[in-house]
Amino acid sequence: MPLLVTGSIGIDTIKTPYGASERCLGGSSIYFSMAASFFSPVRFVGVVGEDCPFDLPAVFKGRNVDLRGLEVRAGSKTFVWHGTYHEDMNDRTTDHVELNVLQEALPKVPEVFRDSKFVFLANTAPALQIELLDQMAGPVFVAADTMNLWIEAAEHLADLRKLLRRIDCLIINDDEARLLARHSNLIKAAESILAMGPRIVIVKKGESGSLMCSADGHRFILSAYPATVVCDPTGAGDSFAGGCMGYLARTGKTDFGTLKTAVAYGTVVASFTIADFSLAGLTAIAREDIDKRLRMLREFTCF
Amino acid sequence: MPLLVTGSIGIDTIKTPYGASERCLGGSSIYFSMAASFFSPVRFVGVVGEDCPFDLPAVFKGRNVDLRGLEVRAGSKTFVWHGTYHEDMNDRTTDHVELNVLQEALPKVPEVFRDSKFVFLANTAPALQIELLDQMAGPVFVAADTMNLWIEAAEHLADLRKLLRRIDCLIINDDEARLLARHSNLIKAAESILAMGPRIVIVKKGESGSLMCSADGHRFILSAYPATVVCDPTGAGDSFAGGCMGYLARTGKTDFGTLKTAVAYGTVVASFTIADFSLAGLTAIAREDIDKRLRMLREFTCF
Repeated sequence: MPLLVTGSIGIDTIKTPYGASERCLGGSSIYFSMAASFFSPVRFVGVVGEDCPFDLPAVFKGRNVDLRGLEVRAGSKTFVWHGTYHEDMNDRTTDHVELNVLQEALPKVPEVFRDSKFVFLANTAPALQIELLDQMAGPVFVAADTMNLWIEAAEHLADLRKLLRRIDCLIINDDEARLLARHSNLIKAAESILAMGPRIVIVKKGESGSLMCSADGHRFILSAYPATVVCDPTGAGDSFAGGCMGYLARTGKTDFGTLKTAVAYGTVVASFTIADFSLAGLTAIAREDIDKRLRMLREFTCF
Repeated sequence: MPLLVTGSIGIDTIKTPYGASERCLGGSSIYFSMAASFFSPVRFVGVVGEDCPFDLPAVFKGRNVDLRGLEVRAGSKTFVWHGTYHEDMNDRTTDHVELNVLQEALPKVPEVFRDSKFVFLANTAPALQIELLDQMAGPVFVAADTMNLWIEAAEHLADLRKLLRRIDCLIINDDEARLLARHSNLIKAAESILAMGPRIVIVKKGESGSLMCSADGHRFILSAYPATVVCDPTGAGDSFAGGCMGYLARTGKTDFGTLKTAVAYGTVVASFTIADFSLAGLTAIAREDIDKRLRMLREFTCF
């Protein structure tokens, strides 16, 4: 079933203990789309400025990513992010950020995309996520990401609470889940978020893996893939979401058993992302590599 | 097959955000034995002072724990530990400690215990663990725990390295594994410890679960049981070890598949321990409760 993503496209400059990458391609919708495209066609909605140095049609060539929702906005500048990862790689500092086109008007969802059945709203102000969702005609499964910035500010939190009543799944990291739920125990935090609206909450715990809870009482806990090569964690969360949603869109199902496999695919795809800078970890692999690693993950985690 | 444990018996005073317990029964061999006794008969080796306020034969009544290795030493005092757990429960402070009888001569392993095939050497100075191991006649699977104190001091570290060449399995927590291996990545740390001697390393990660690696390249990663009731984490690690070793001793096997199930049983038993103070979480349950939770854990973690 058609899968649509809305999110950022960025010019990233990243330093990690293992190297650095200057002005490389980044952004939530980029990582999401590349990850999801291993499973399902992707409809891409995002905006860059006229200074954008990347040839996105070339980046996604042969990958079944429909870029008709990509706007190159005249007179605007592309989102810029500079970040540094520290020794333990779970901890990062934003050194510099230029929101640029991200603080202007949203890109429009093209008419031909509006019937998408699976939708991922990558992190942005919740009011904008709602505005994007309003353009969709009857999606069957909507997932969204969010961040501390929107949870901590009362006016944004009110919008986030509205959004939560309209989506099926929130994909959120552990610190943000605790912040939103005001509970330090992650299971209780997830249950508290379920009470705010979505029927599925997926909590990303970095190298500790992820936790998924459903409103009807199912739970799933999965380790991260035991990667010994962690070069650059940027995009891990969006790749995880892309792998999940790509698999769901491919199967067209959202029962808990399918969701478990989707989370496992997301976990595996993210493990390839972090092995190299920018998209290099994902562009180096084929679907067979993902399936092989999924079988390994099953062996590593099932008893 | 017979399972022997050597370790401490303590008078614990514990404060947590959920309550307090004064002068309750604690110590590694106590938690280990109670946990293991759900699966296998246990041979108990430990020493208390003449002031010991606990009736251990009554504590273990009907539980198939052979206390012929318990020494009540005249003129000595029992080990005392006071600890406080803080908000996130992974972080604890030792407020007060009296080693007392633990810094005197070791208890002897009774002659009738020396043919034990499965042996757990709970944490103490590695030279003492070696001395205890020397009293055994041909065990088939020896596991040991250790701690930062012995890793950080050069003279103890030399003994620990000797011990590692003589045991089959090291059960250690994540911070200690990183300290011993001098590597922050836990997989690499475990591999580095395998190179020091044992064929199995199990790394305990608290609420993040555990990781097991074998010298022949197998890996297993298991989440903690998703407990929403965490009252007192004291004894979780020793209960984990007890559940693991008890299951192995019951089956008499130590192949990786059996070890995976053993780690799952250890995980489940520990989840009962932390639900209440001292042994109350373990004495409240029967083997069926453990098996039921094991099935739940499989559903929560396998895909």
